[in-house]
Amino acid sequence: MERKEFRELTSSQDARRIISQIPLLPDIIELNLTQANGCVLASDIIAGVDVPGFDRASMDGYAVRAKDTYPAREDRPVKLELAGKVETGYLPEVIVGDSTAVEISTGAMMPVGADAVVMVEYTRQDGTNIDILRPVSINENIIHAGSDIMVGERVLEAGTRLTSREIGVLAAVGMEQIPAKNLIVGIISTGSELVELSAQLTIGTVYDINSYSLGAAVSECGGSVKHYGIVKDHRPDMEKILTRAVNECHLVLTSGSTSAGVGDVMYHIIAEQGELLLHGIDIKPGKPVIIGMINGTPVFGLPGYPTSALTIFNEFAAPLIRSTLGLFGSSLKVKAHLAVDFHSAGRRQLLPVGLVRGMAYPVDKGSGAITTLARADGFIEIEPQVEMLGAGEEVEVTMIGDVKAPDVLFIGSHCLGFEDLMWLLPFNVRLINTGSTGGLVAVRDGIADMAGVHLLDDAGKYNISFMKNFGMENAVLVKGYLREQGLIIRPDSSIRGFEDITVARFINRTPGSGTRVLTDMKLRELSTALGVGFEELCASIKGYDTQARTHSAVAAAVKLDRADVGIGIRSAAQFNGLNFIHLADEEYDFVVKKEFIKSSMGKVFLDVLQSKEFSNSLPDGIKTYMRTGEIVSSAHV
Amino acid sequence: MERKEFRELTSSQDARRIISQIPLLPDIIELNLTQANGCVLASDIIAGVDVPGFDRASMDGYAVRAKDTYPAREDRPVKLELAGKVETGYLPEVIVGDSTAVEISTGAMMPVGADAVVMVEYTRQDGTNIDILRPVSINENIIHAGSDIMVGERVLEAGTRLTSREIGVLAAVGMEQIPAKNLIVGIISTGSELVELSAQLTIGTVYDINSYSLGAAVSECGGSVKHYGIVKDHRPDMEKILTRAVNECHLVLTSGSTSAGVGDVMYHIIAEQGELLLHGIDIKPGKPVIIGMINGTPVFGLPGYPTSALTIFNEFAAPLIRSTLGLFGSSLKVKAHLAVDFHSAGRRQLLPVGLVRGMAYPVDKGSGAITTLARADGFIEIEPQVEMLGAGEEVEVTMIGDVKAPDVLFIGSHCLGFEDLMWLLPFNVRLINTGSTGGLVAVRDGIADMAGVHLLDDAGKYNISFMKNFGMENAVLVKGYLREQGLIIRPDSSIRGFEDITVARFINRTPGSGTRVLTDMKLRELSTALGVGFEELCASIKGYDTQARTHSAVAAAVKLDRADVGIGIRSAAQFNGLNFIHLADEEYDFVVKKEFIKSSMGKVFLDVLQSKEFSNSLPDGIKTYMRTGEIVSSAHV
Repeated sequence: MERKEFRELTSSQDARRIISQIPLLPDIIELNLTQANGCVLASDIIAGVDVPGFDRASMDGYAVRAKDTYPAREDRPVKLELAGKVETGYLPEVIVGDSTAVEISTGAMMPVGADAVVMVEYTRQDGTNIDILRPVSINENIIHAGSDIMVGERVLEAGTRLTSREIGVLAAVGMEQIPAKNLIVGIISTGSELVELSAQLTIGTVYDINSYSLGAAVSECGGSVKHYGIVKDHRPDMEKILTRAVNECHLVLTSGSTSAGVGDVMYHIIAEQGELLLHGIDIKPGKPVIIGMINGTPVFGLPGYPTSALTIFNEFAAPLIRSTLGLFGSSLKVKAHLAVDFHSAGRRQLLPVGLVRGMAYPVDKGSGAITTLARADGFIEIEPQVEMLGAGEEVEVTMIGDVKAPDVLFIGSHCLGFEDLMWLLPFNVRLINTGSTGGLVAVRDGIADMAGVHLLDDAGKYNISFMKNFGMENAVLVKGYLREQGLIIRPDSSIRGFEDITVARFINRTPGSGTRVLTDMKLRELSTALGVGFEELCASIKGYDTQARTHSAVAAAVKLDRADVGIGIRSAAQFNGLNFIHLADEEYDFVVKKEFIKSSMGKVFLDVLQSKEFSNSLPDGIKTYMRTGEIVSSAHV
Repeated sequence: MERKEFRELTSSQDARRIISQIPLLPDIIELNLTQANGCVLASDIIAGVDVPGFDRASMDGYAVRAKDTYPAREDRPVKLELAGKVETGYLPEVIVGDSTAVEISTGAMMPVGADAVVMVEYTRQDGTNIDILRPVSINENIIHAGSDIMVGERVLEAGTRLTSREIGVLAAVGMEQIPAKNLIVGIISTGSELVELSAQLTIGTVYDINSYSLGAAVSECGGSVKHYGIVKDHRPDMEKILTRAVNECHLVLTSGSTSAGVGDVMYHIIAEQGELLLHGIDIKPGKPVIIGMINGTPVFGLPGYPTSALTIFNEFAAPLIRSTLGLFGSSLKVKAHLAVDFHSAGRRQLLPVGLVRGMAYPVDKGSGAITTLARADGFIEIEPQVEMLGAGEEVEVTMIGDVKAPDVLFIGSHCLGFEDLMWLLPFNVRLINTGSTGGLVAVRDGIADMAGVHLLDDAGKYNISFMKNFGMENAVLVKGYLREQGLIIRPDSSIRGFEDITVARFINRTPGSGTRVLTDMKLRELSTALGVGFEELCASIKGYDTQARTHSAVAAAVKLDRADVGIGIRSAAQFNGLNFIHLADEEYDFVVKKEFIKSSMGKVFLDVLQSKEFSNSLPDGIKTYMRTGEIVSSAHV
């Protein structure tokens, strides 16, 4: 294996400076106004017409000379001669002289001689005369030519991003075609493990995520996307596609192939074929970043992990695209309090966080995870010298995209049953899966409104004793539903019961998970039945030390024939087309903040939990029962 | 003229309730993921694959059994036998047994038997052996199958609006096509005065704005637009196009033709052909709104004025579209302090406001103006019983679209020269044209950072005396530039000098404007020269009482042959292809808050004002001079 050479990382400050100096000149394209929403104007728009182009009546009524109306009173109306009519869209053919009035519609052109409009409500028609009941002053109910937009006025500036409001202004001055900036950004995904979304996943391959997420992110900052698809970690292929992309685009983004394991292919290509601007940014996850120029076109080599790629894009590439287009709007920053202690890696880093009611909590599932960003509302930048951020500390959150505002925060053990429940709740729930213990801690510390737990104690009872052990004085236990736990095996398996795990390849779960507790209880029973020590029995089981973190990972290991049996919930077996042997009915309960259960949302939560709709929506292997919705206060323990 | 019948307006609360009960069922269309950004998911997305689909190395290094590494130290490495290599994207062909290691790349599949990865940095290769320098624990540097997304997990919910982040998640689970909600909204603009953008404006006609601004607004809340163009105020035409639209769309928006002057055409069609849900909403500008159902399709008859149409759309139609699509995000509301006293009309109203540094100021140029909304950051709702809102009062602003944040607020007399200056300033200036006096008041009251003024006093001096008269203790006068004022006449005009206005049709300006002050000064000189009284002279001038509010309106009146001569700046004449006879060089100056002039932005402002670039950018008739940039403190007066 090729060793990475020691190299000095560029500070994020220097990186921003280097990037800001990259010259980029977008094309200008003509767009029809109906396609221009969200686009960026390429030049100032100077009004070629006045808006309105003529003095208009702003009300239905009568065009008059104001001074003729001055003596008018409700009980002593002024009588004017009706001289004609002006309709909207037509040129007035009458002139308003002394003591005359002309009928006029809203938006119609003022006839010569008139300097005000009397609203129809304050008039009475009397044969060929009009009685005016109230005086008007000069210019009353008239919209003057050019009062909205003047000829020669700069109505919009180059660099304006168009919304419905600016599009209205462009229509008002008759711009059917508008000049828009067009920055073409090429996107290449690299990696031998990547396959197209249209392909079937085979073992060891993953879908190409970055082409799609980066493509969408480029559009979001106003660039035009040109997709070059997937290229394997093979230097000649990459050189070929990169050469094409730098000739066809203003900017090229690649992701992946920056790791030593694949020989830093991107680095070698840029270093040899172009000019290297930087290699590695000193901010997590910026270490693998490579930026250079090939043939006058900037190339950003982003990390391969989707969340890392999108984070680095947003932080370093998006500002270049925005400023090139002339968009100076910066991201919204909000103050929040950190919900938990956070130990920093001792490097500068961008930490994705979720936000609920002013509390920020880290949502990092690891840079390999795409769901990290989908669950983050923004991120905080942590300085390298910071070792720990304490719970409650004020942090500045740079928001990503639209501000979401979940009503309720659920943290705990992942369960498909809860997802069904969530769907029926009439408020917005954010779900964070941390396992039962993490959920308890989050509710106790006041971060989460509720947690989902399924923890078996030594007495064989579920959940209630943990309320006391964890000091959950601020919460109650709400009984949830029963989940079937059992053996997950392949359809052709010869395994018939729990005792067969001694003669098979087993896949275990991580210690502390509810399922691991169940497994060890079952193994204790078995050791007694077989008359061997517990430790001895465990040591004899192949794979006892192999620890999967989710029901799904257990099912996947069995499906892929990497293990013969594991323990998990029935629905995980079913989704993977595997067989299931029932072992236990587990009690999946909710630990809910007292404050929340007393609120109107809490009442709705209980109603929905006990509803027929919820019961009917549950998948096989999960069912409500007599106790569903029962509240067990920790005081009762 | 047909009289409006008295009718009870629906309260905005009732209107919202009525609208929320309108049944709307969008279509479901399949979209390629590359086209899905901004779209709304039509159904829940359940993961059909685990992400990742297999246990992966998260680092370059060696796959090992963790327990083999426990004794490893930098100075006492553990020696493992190198059993092979696993590359990313390929199925491992080796198995990791006791005391063996397998080389592995980031993202590659973990070989059977291994339960951890040692990072390459903590190893040394030694022939066919590998020295391990640090221990790893079980699962270290492994990303487990399903740890990001589990099979069967609901990764996204129906009603989610897709951004780059959700698109990444969809790619991760291999969704090449996604089901999106599709709500087709038909748009019809009505009014005999409307013309297509491709057409030439003739006198009395205006461009169709609403088709474009409403179309963009519909897209912004996730609907699909179907344009039906313009229809004249002619009932059979409107019935025909409306019949087509209600059959082809889920929802139809019309604008205009709700006024008594055109016989309330929309009202009669809906009342006779369908079911009227409401006619008129008791919130300004909602009086002309008509909502009904024709043939099962809801029809919103919006006001014809573009700003009114867009305001009512945003407030009443957009929520229906959003909720139909399942989007529950509400508009951002921020607290602000009202910058000026505002006298309410005594009706419930939506008042567009601009926001600068926490101060909200009304930007209403009248409902006929399209620029009103383009300059508003949001609006405040004023209750009907409120007669006045005082300056400084706290108000809640419902933000429209993206939050803009101007650095500097300029209020005052409109000038093309200042627009050129603004363009050169490296910060974001918001410009509000209120005339010189309005600008002085705005700076004095602390709302605006600077004003543009050109006010001539009785002594024939510009601006300085007004600093004292208006009590501008918090501001300084910065000398600006000279603007040529003169007679604006048609090229074929026989007018040769100011004295000729006595024998022509004149167009005057509003009292208090700088130009009106100049006009009256010139007329006084002329009355002295002619030996007639000033009043008498004025009364003899045709059009002396006709008051235009802008230079441009003066030019338009002359161009359209509604007057023969007016007074204005040279550039207004030039933009309209008119001739110009020089009368005076006006001093256009800036009144700038002391606080601002001392700031770094203030220094930049002075530098740019005195720069060659600015001087060169000015149009004919405006020029900088010796005094440009000179600061005259009001203390010097």
